[in-house]
Amino acid sequence: MSNEQILVSPSALTAFVTELFARSGMNDADAAFSAQALVQTNLWGIDSHGVLRLPIYTQRLRSGAINPAPQVRQVGGSLAFELWHGDDGMGFVVGRDAMRRAIELARQYNVSAVGVVHSNHFGATGLYARMAAEQGMIGIVMANVIPNVVAPGGNKPITGNNPIALAVPTFGEFPFVLDISLSNVAGGKLLLASKKGEKIPLDWATDRDGRPTDDPDEGFKGFLLPVGGHKGLGLSYAVDILCGVITGGVFQHQMKSMYRQPDEPSLTGHFMIVINPEAIISREDMAARMAEFQATIKASPMWDETQEMLLPGELEYRTAQKRAANGIPLPADLYRELLALGSELGMETMLAEL
Amino acid sequence: MSNEQILVSPSALTAFVTELFARSGMNDADAAFSAQALVQTNLWGIDSHGVLRLPIYTQRLRSGAINPAPQVRQVGGSLAFELWHGDDGMGFVVGRDAMRRAIELARQYNVSAVGVVHSNHFGATGLYARMAAEQGMIGIVMANVIPNVVAPGGNKPITGNNPIALAVPTFGEFPFVLDISLSNVAGGKLLLASKKGEKIPLDWATDRDGRPTDDPDEGFKGFLLPVGGHKGLGLSYAVDILCGVITGGVFQHQMKSMYRQPDEPSLTGHFMIVINPEAIISREDMAARMAEFQATIKASPMWDETQEMLLPGELEYRTAQKRAANGIPLPADLYRELLALGSELGMETMLAEL
Repeated sequence: MSNEQILVSPSALTAFVTELFARSGMNDADAAFSAQALVQTNLWGIDSHGVLRLPIYTQRLRSGAINPAPQVRQVGGSLAFELWHGDDGMGFVVGRDAMRRAIELARQYNVSAVGVVHSNHFGATGLYARMAAEQGMIGIVMANVIPNVVAPGGNKPITGNNPIALAVPTFGEFPFVLDISLSNVAGGKLLLASKKGEKIPLDWATDRDGRPTDDPDEGFKGFLLPVGGHKGLGLSYAVDILCGVITGGVFQHQMKSMYRQPDEPSLTGHFMIVINPEAIISREDMAARMAEFQATIKASPMWDETQEMLLPGELEYRTAQKRAANGIPLPADLYRELLALGSELGMETMLAEL
Repeated sequence: MSNEQILVSPSALTAFVTELFARSGMNDADAAFSAQALVQTNLWGIDSHGVLRLPIYTQRLRSGAINPAPQVRQVGGSLAFELWHGDDGMGFVVGRDAMRRAIELARQYNVSAVGVVHSNHFGATGLYARMAAEQGMIGIVMANVIPNVVAPGGNKPITGNNPIALAVPTFGEFPFVLDISLSNVAGGKLLLASKKGEKIPLDWATDRDGRPTDDPDEGFKGFLLPVGGHKGLGLSYAVDILCGVITGGVFQHQMKSMYRQPDEPSLTGHFMIVINPEAIISREDMAARMAEFQATIKASPMWDETQEMLLPGELEYRTAQKRAANGIPLPADLYRELLALGSELGMETMLAEL
């Protein structure tokens, strides 16, 4: 595998992906939103959740596993807490509609919750938490995924590395954004260790029997361990309960894998909470206090001078500035895969190399 | 130090602690509630947050650092999100009043949030999350504490091992209760490793300069590391923001230590979210689905047959059953300390050994 990278401009990539989605049956607004979400994710440097996923998304759109024209709608709840149905639509569209509704409800009640059933993979969880922060609100967003995490001592996955994101407006250069999954590490870290010929800590992964391993290859064939042992395990259960149990959706092994069951809806659940801080603090005070909070962290001395105290969201902000100026790097293999997808769909939009 | 244990009955201990609090200036209802909360915590086996803390609580009540007769009141917010002021009262009382209000609001709006300023140490965070579950609701509770956790690379604590608890009603034997702090381990684990002469993993603690150490004694003199590196660190920041920044309370180093500043209010902040699942699911369905969720976990096979798949809250439930029947074990030193406190306050209630 070569490490060759092709640089593309964010606007060209967005136009390309928009047409790709439109030709896969999505309406123009949904195609454009989903494309922007994916490209924005690459701008932040979260390449694992960016256009890398286009092949599976378009495959699923074409098979009908993802409904390209969903009727996303309220199916339950009332007042500040509603339940929505994603109609097996593209996760970006379902996530967007649910978060928009949660923001509206938080404007009305000062805090809101929206549960979602029948969604699909919605990319980086931070996308939706950030939507709240852009409106001056605090967004908390989670999703359940098919079990890929073993409980310590167990010999098969019992829960997903369910992501949680939380965004807080700073009214400064960039919002506070935490976007984490609840395994100790992602599978990519195991591959990296294997490439470097390094052993891995015993709390990262297990072999196929659930036994902790320090061999990254065994770990990659096996399962992930939860972050912080029982702490991450319990949080993962909590996310599954909120997204899948109380919503009447699916949980644990009832979920489908986007990759292993490419022709079936994933039945992904989401849970979103939006808090309107202006109910208790003015925007000016909030901005000043968040600035103070962040400045304290930035000013904290380091013993390791090669490291820097980064705020949650800061690395993504810097990467986005760099990539907006210089272009988004795509692995050459992926670039060629996207071009092939485009020609397969008879696309007019080109994706020129920068 | 001897390991001798004295067994006391839960009811005798509750009566004793109630009078201790009453003689420290609290009214009867608040004294009884706080005593029950502490003894309940010991029943669950969470001895680090039980009557072990009585000496510091009573010292602080007597110095006025804890206001024995607070006017806990709403000072901001509206609709489903309110801000409350604890008047520097006992944390148990402030936490109870805030959670009661949050439950009321969730009954009214289906989801609610209550921020709290000017509280104090409120014991186990799970106490308040459980109050929601007892009412058929999901409770999420957090508190900020004085910085005791270093960010990886940093050389002094920048955030607290801020606790988060989440409780979900099961309508079964015991609720789902997650109650965690955001350091990788508590200080007690370092002491235990030291006692056993064991090294500790490098992600548990640092020396006084913030450098990771595998020496438990160095770690005990130094600082804690966050659970899961940047994941727990970011969650800890998020808790501080919710409890201290947006509430207009204090955060980071503005907080006071209950031990190092025994004569000053801690200025602890809390944040509580309550979700009414009955807005979207019937109690019967919820009970059936939680039972299914929990049964799947319990039935999951173990490679390590000495271990058992425990549900969050299960160990506490079992310990409480055992201790309710057999008594609560107190270290002999603590037992004598409590008796001395009692005689100092001219108590009538005795604390007989079982």
